[in-house]
Amino acid sequence: MSDPAVDTTRGSRRPSGRDAKRAARTARAASTIAYITRKIPYYEVLTEEGLALIEHNADTILEEIGLEFRDDPESIEVLKKGGAEVQGERVRFPRGLCRHIIQASAPREFTQHARNPARSVVIGGKNTVFAPAYGSPFIRNIEDGRRYARIEDFRNFVKLTYMAPSLHHSGGTICEPVDLPVNKRHLDMVYSHIKYSDKPFMGSVTAPERAADSVEMAKITFGPDFIDPATGRPKTVLINLINVNSPMTYDATMLGALKVYARANQACIVTPFILAGAMSPVTVAGTATQTLAEALAGLALIQMLNPGAPMVLGSFASSISMQSGAPTFGTPEPALVLYAMAALARRLGVPFRSGGSLCASKIADAQAAFESAQTLLPTCLAGVNFVLHTAGWLEGGLSMGYEKFVMDVDQAGMMHTLLAGVDLSENGQAMSAIRDVGPGKHFLGCAHTQANFESAFYRSPIADNNSYEQWEADGAQDLNQRANSSWKKQLAEYMPPPIDPAVDEALLAFMKKKKDAVPDSNV
Amino acid sequence: MSDPAVDTTRGSRRPSGRDAKRAARTARAASTIAYITRKIPYYEVLTEEGLALIEHNADTILEEIGLEFRDDPESIEVLKKGGAEVQGERVRFPRGLCRHIIQASAPREFTQHARNPARSVVIGGKNTVFAPAYGSPFIRNIEDGRRYARIEDFRNFVKLTYMAPSLHHSGGTICEPVDLPVNKRHLDMVYSHIKYSDKPFMGSVTAPERAADSVEMAKITFGPDFIDPATGRPKTVLINLINVNSPMTYDATMLGALKVYARANQACIVTPFILAGAMSPVTVAGTATQTLAEALAGLALIQMLNPGAPMVLGSFASSISMQSGAPTFGTPEPALVLYAMAALARRLGVPFRSGGSLCASKIADAQAAFESAQTLLPTCLAGVNFVLHTAGWLEGGLSMGYEKFVMDVDQAGMMHTLLAGVDLSENGQAMSAIRDVGPGKHFLGCAHTQANFESAFYRSPIADNNSYEQWEADGAQDLNQRANSSWKKQLAEYMPPPIDPAVDEALLAFMKKKKDAVPDSNV
Repeated sequence: MSDPAVDTTRGSRRPSGRDAKRAARTARAASTIAYITRKIPYYEVLTEEGLALIEHNADTILEEIGLEFRDDPESIEVLKKGGAEVQGERVRFPRGLCRHIIQASAPREFTQHARNPARSVVIGGKNTVFAPAYGSPFIRNIEDGRRYARIEDFRNFVKLTYMAPSLHHSGGTICEPVDLPVNKRHLDMVYSHIKYSDKPFMGSVTAPERAADSVEMAKITFGPDFIDPATGRPKTVLINLINVNSPMTYDATMLGALKVYARANQACIVTPFILAGAMSPVTVAGTATQTLAEALAGLALIQMLNPGAPMVLGSFASSISMQSGAPTFGTPEPALVLYAMAALARRLGVPFRSGGSLCASKIADAQAAFESAQTLLPTCLAGVNFVLHTAGWLEGGLSMGYEKFVMDVDQAGMMHTLLAGVDLSENGQAMSAIRDVGPGKHFLGCAHTQANFESAFYRSPIADNNSYEQWEADGAQDLNQRANSSWKKQLAEYMPPPIDPAVDEALLAFMKKKKDAVPDSNV
Repeated sequence: MSDPAVDTTRGSRRPSGRDAKRAARTARAASTIAYITRKIPYYEVLTEEGLALIEHNADTILEEIGLEFRDDPESIEVLKKGGAEVQGERVRFPRGLCRHIIQASAPREFTQHARNPARSVVIGGKNTVFAPAYGSPFIRNIEDGRRYARIEDFRNFVKLTYMAPSLHHSGGTICEPVDLPVNKRHLDMVYSHIKYSDKPFMGSVTAPERAADSVEMAKITFGPDFIDPATGRPKTVLINLINVNSPMTYDATMLGALKVYARANQACIVTPFILAGAMSPVTVAGTATQTLAEALAGLALIQMLNPGAPMVLGSFASSISMQSGAPTFGTPEPALVLYAMAALARRLGVPFRSGGSLCASKIADAQAAFESAQTLLPTCLAGVNFVLHTAGWLEGGLSMGYEKFVMDVDQAGMMHTLLAGVDLSENGQAMSAIRDVGPGKHFLGCAHTQANFESAFYRSPIADNNSYEQWEADGAQDLNQRANSSWKKQLAEYMPPPIDPAVDEALLAFMKKKKDAVPDSNV
């Protein structure tokens, strides 16, 4: 992996000295931190007693109501052998069984390896990993408005994510490349993550064979490094989103992907996908209870399949408008669910996924920003370990916004500073500055300010803090317009990470073989 | 105070049945809660040890560097008698003196009485009071863009605040009525708060005689109720913003107002106004330390003047752009200062003021929303007791936005739900709903959902959660446009609270006397 690949996507403009400086700065920033390790406390909304009550009720759901595992006799068989009580597709779990099985073998944290080892992330513990949004069929930007996403958009977002110092992970289905056939597009998505980035990424979950293709491509990419010499087991190089069909149902598609990944020692995020009021009760406690019960069952299944397999407890919980039934985001109830679920995951002892920069707004306006901030800040304070949907999310996930992406990346950058906490060193205490300056003077020129000039405050690349007059002279732009300039500039400046040409060729050959084997299909 | 005054500001349109329903709903909502009592924990970023270190350093500032009290020999004399060491205008305080004096007599919480007793607020403890923004010379709305504020704008914002169920307090100089002379406009501002609202409000601080006028008008309004029969002292009916000229300087204007209010048993908010990097060190710990030292000195002065006088420790701390020196808002460092200061105020044992919906953005765009949310949510989690600038703030406080106001009121409403925490009652646990529905069904129609339909989730009156197609059919509006419709509709529907005509006449007579006594002046 030492020869830089020829970048056919890059413009022919010659880089200037300013470009070089910017590139150096970007590289420096991007290489500074592979993931966040928090230095501030968790925020929790429930007492020990409240959390125990929810755990008790979750066990009641598992014991009395049970979950359905549909169209997958193999999973049912595994669950039965693991101690569950099976009646047809209904599976009930004796009180405490799932927790016991999980705690006996599940890792509290694990490393997801990137093809660039400096980009590997540790998921769990005090760590937070930011990944872009996932799954939207549309994109939006100022030029095009809203339209179906294409593979070119997918590549663009992989590149923008690669360049974003505040995103640690390349994500998965950043947007659906609707111009490619459904049964083959996973190959191009996985390839794009490998080719245009060197950050860790996600595999396909839409069919078991696509999950298997993702594992194969990871094997090609990592070569002999795929197997951990210490354990003889595959390294975890993929993380994968397994959504529960809430309420209380697992379907064959997701179970199929779960089995492939669990057996290959790749990480699964088991996520009850809940719009409270539709897929769960309208209350915070009820939604958290059901989320926990659903997740416990899937997580236990993974440990039954492969004890010690890495996995993440996921929670995607928002609410609905009681008038229209439409999903709402950034409201207070989902934030309360998030705080509760993060604490419950810590008690269980598995990494936690939730949050992001969620919003219902169709455009990157004030509604989008309010809703996103009201999701991302709780995400960080609660202690989410793997943050999907950190950047780009619009319209309840239906649309991936180019400008929104840039805004969210900026907010994620601020979260790095927040999570670093308060510096109480002698320099942080700054008593020398206060002594130097004294009453009625200003601190701008003092030695302490000069010494801390570079690192003093988080610097937003897109916020406008100029005078009103300067802002007007600059065209009275809103944040959307400045973000538009930013992503276009970034794409023009993109330089790909190096990749071993032999690996690249092998990946392309694998994809060709798979694509030639079956006709295109949109199922 | 039983006869409703004739409302000359109201349109002649006859109210419809729908209007009546809305009015009833508004009234119900507005009367539900006079202020918030939190049910969720505080969020703190520093340990006991860290907080003690900042307290120690603050005492070092007070002891070794001292503060300047400029052009006010009387205050200097009071401080000297209270135990401070005076050299000219420089005042130093023996270690621990300020804290000792404050803790000996300052109330941990106090009631600010409103002319409608149902609107009285308790400031301090677990309570949070939301007030609108304060002090901007400009207003902004979609129709006018940005222009100087007028008394009509001031009245509009008093009315909108009165109608906002999530704002508990009418505030003070919501915007500067620049069309009125500087030396008389305080009369019209105080009168507007009394006439067009019945929520508690703030007095003038721009000159001691204007503070005295504010107290006089309060006396007229409360009549014999102004004196608390239990104590023989005046009730606290005004709260007033005393800004420290950071770093480490009190000026005669603010000291003049402070003395008037402290002696009249009216509440002072002593607020170091700090843009870190200019008025304090560039670090979080340094800024918190200096804020604490400055506030301690002013708070101690108040207790020396009138032991037991109600007061609030204030912190207004933001940072600056290290490139331009311009103030920035909604960045992570001020949030860290806020969390630290809230904890320090609790340790001191006085109510705390900070936060709001601050932003640097000139317009109510995504930047404004991100920055405001990144201030308001920390404000609520930290446990701020009196929140100035909750609604309307734009452009670092230079502009009061009509549309921004509506957006911020909505966000403040969400904070009510957040601060109410998680309902763990049997209804909150919702196990009956989960049992009723079971795997694979939906919760929309179940008995539990129906029973909780009205109160289930916070309902934003301005967020758009409709389908993309519906949103397009509705004109593809952004939040700014929907907020514009909202404030115009509200002003059209405004109905004033009743006021005793004799009180109204007395207030008008007092104002006329004061206005006639001196010529207009803009100093």
